[in-house]
Amino acid sequence: MSGLKIGVVGATGMVGREYLSILEQSRLEIDRLRLFASQRSVGRQLPFHGDQLPVEEFTVEAARGLDVAFLSVSTELAREYAPKLAAAGTLVIDDSSAFRLADDVPLVVPEVNPEDVRHHRGIIAGPNCSTAQMVVVLAPLHRANGLRRVVVDTYQAASGAGKAAMDELIEHTRETLAGHSPEPRAHPHSLAFNLFPAVDSFRDDGYSNEEWKMLAETRKIMHLSDLCLSATCVRVPVPIGHSEAVHLEFDQPMDPRDARRLLEAAPGVVVVDDPRNGLYPQPALAAGRDPVYVGRIRADSSRPGGIALWIVADNVRKGAALNAVQIAELVFGTGRR
Amino acid sequence: MSGLKIGVVGATGMVGREYLSILEQSRLEIDRLRLFASQRSVGRQLPFHGDQLPVEEFTVEAARGLDVAFLSVSTELAREYAPKLAAAGTLVIDDSSAFRLADDVPLVVPEVNPEDVRHHRGIIAGPNCSTAQMVVVLAPLHRANGLRRVVVDTYQAASGAGKAAMDELIEHTRETLAGHSPEPRAHPHSLAFNLFPAVDSFRDDGYSNEEWKMLAETRKIMHLSDLCLSATCVRVPVPIGHSEAVHLEFDQPMDPRDARRLLEAAPGVVVVDDPRNGLYPQPALAAGRDPVYVGRIRADSSRPGGIALWIVADNVRKGAALNAVQIAELVFGTGRR
Repeated sequence: MSGLKIGVVGATGMVGREYLSILEQSRLEIDRLRLFASQRSVGRQLPFHGDQLPVEEFTVEAARGLDVAFLSVSTELAREYAPKLAAAGTLVIDDSSAFRLADDVPLVVPEVNPEDVRHHRGIIAGPNCSTAQMVVVLAPLHRANGLRRVVVDTYQAASGAGKAAMDELIEHTRETLAGHSPEPRAHPHSLAFNLFPAVDSFRDDGYSNEEWKMLAETRKIMHLSDLCLSATCVRVPVPIGHSEAVHLEFDQPMDPRDARRLLEAAPGVVVVDDPRNGLYPQPALAAGRDPVYVGRIRADSSRPGGIALWIVADNVRKGAALNAVQIAELVFGTGRR
Repeated sequence: MSGLKIGVVGATGMVGREYLSILEQSRLEIDRLRLFASQRSVGRQLPFHGDQLPVEEFTVEAARGLDVAFLSVSTELAREYAPKLAAAGTLVIDDSSAFRLADDVPLVVPEVNPEDVRHHRGIIAGPNCSTAQMVVVLAPLHRANGLRRVVVDTYQAASGAGKAAMDELIEHTRETLAGHSPEPRAHPHSLAFNLFPAVDSFRDDGYSNEEWKMLAETRKIMHLSDLCLSATCVRVPVPIGHSEAVHLEFDQPMDPRDARRLLEAAPGVVVVDDPRNGLYPQPALAAGRDPVYVGRIRADSSRPGGIALWIVADNVRKGAALNAVQIAELVFGTGRR
């Protein structure tokens, strides 16, 4: 089999750029990599394996002939273009929320539900960033002892709202240190030395859509349609790296030593858990790295048999680009399509 | 009755300074206010009601004759001096952890357990900052419908670790923006654009002492020796203002509309809860203010009848100085002693 013709659509965005760095390290056999963006990025070049690749204007016609397209665009654009690319024979791996809950689209985290890629009809979705890192930790525990309930409170980095939002955190921090009161544009409030419990828009039931996605996407990925989950999603003044405080209940009591052993053996997970020596996951240490880090593993003091723990990962990598490339490796590495 | 002779011990610290601003607005009848600190602060003056008050060197002998002493010193110094001051006839209101769980010392949050001040023997303690703001919100809900279980994850400001820790956050942020990698001194890791799940030292069971204090102190203040509580305490890059994501279970199902009504009527609490219009508590808005702010009040989607909500308060005020002055107002305002 000759190599793959791969396209990254939205290549000049923050996640798009991350695709290039992850594809450089991927075991996918790449025959040709093409970069697409909107018309105003045409003429730019981005580095890949020592070459400079040109950015092309995206159209469905221009992208014809790709084996796989990584879509890193808005939900609206994904909704418009993914079916057209799929109809033209390209496997679309989409990181927007457009198709995540569609019945005929697998929602996949390769460490959790790799078997679901088999059922795709041309589109495979990756989950929300805060969901992706959490299910990588929940899955090995659930396989050993059925998961019943999840309470999760998040500490989400500015980059989860895009590059402009990350840049605004840095710029607003500079301005605040200089004694100014900057006006928010990318965030609903200034994030400089501040935080707020508002990620995405709000629903009638008082939850944000981000919080609701964590419930709905976790249920779909883990095939647990009755899983109980409540989330509070909070934006914090950190550029990269989502953190999550998680409290879990299982069918049977879970011993924290068993939880630790299961997580130490789990793919994609690194246990960092020696708090007396200052060792626990932190966003500054997770940024730019692939694993999902977990620590503070302990018995939940409010529920016999429950477990509390702390999860941190690079939201731009495992939360988006890395997960999508792993999906492609799963599809093409096994010869399935 | 003539006015009170009041002393602030540790007056030059961050909390000590906050006492002066709060005492200026207090309804306590103050005959004389004296400021004490260590020998190296002698000669400094601090403003109070337009005057400049001298800082005196603290000794038990020098403080003789005070009606009330607000102690804002280390746990070690509090343990040494509070009993001596009390033996000399001074009512000691201590904000350290030295006496909080002692059987013969009331641990008081005036909105929650004002009646407990009656049993003091010369020392009254105020709780940990993260506990104080939480119980102000839990108490009115518990009075209506017995509280069974609390899951709380915190977002704690740098100032909770003292002024040097708050200053280090600002300084490290400047240095990080300038491209340097500053070495932490006041914190276990640099807090600039980072966060970590480590407040206070760690216990054998994997919990931090801060997390354990939230359990033990909440039980004592609320007279709920069987209350179930699990906390994850996290330090975040915010100077002032602790935030808390809280998930609650009650004896009977709690309707979120009832919870909101109870909180709107609760002393010391301000409900800020219109997320679609960007209204929810935030540390940048709570800093420098007295109330405990609560918002994001909603049904807990993981437990029928449970409630999820979001609490923010100024940790230096309600978490320390304000609560202590309120205790003194309670004791002297009612004529009890």
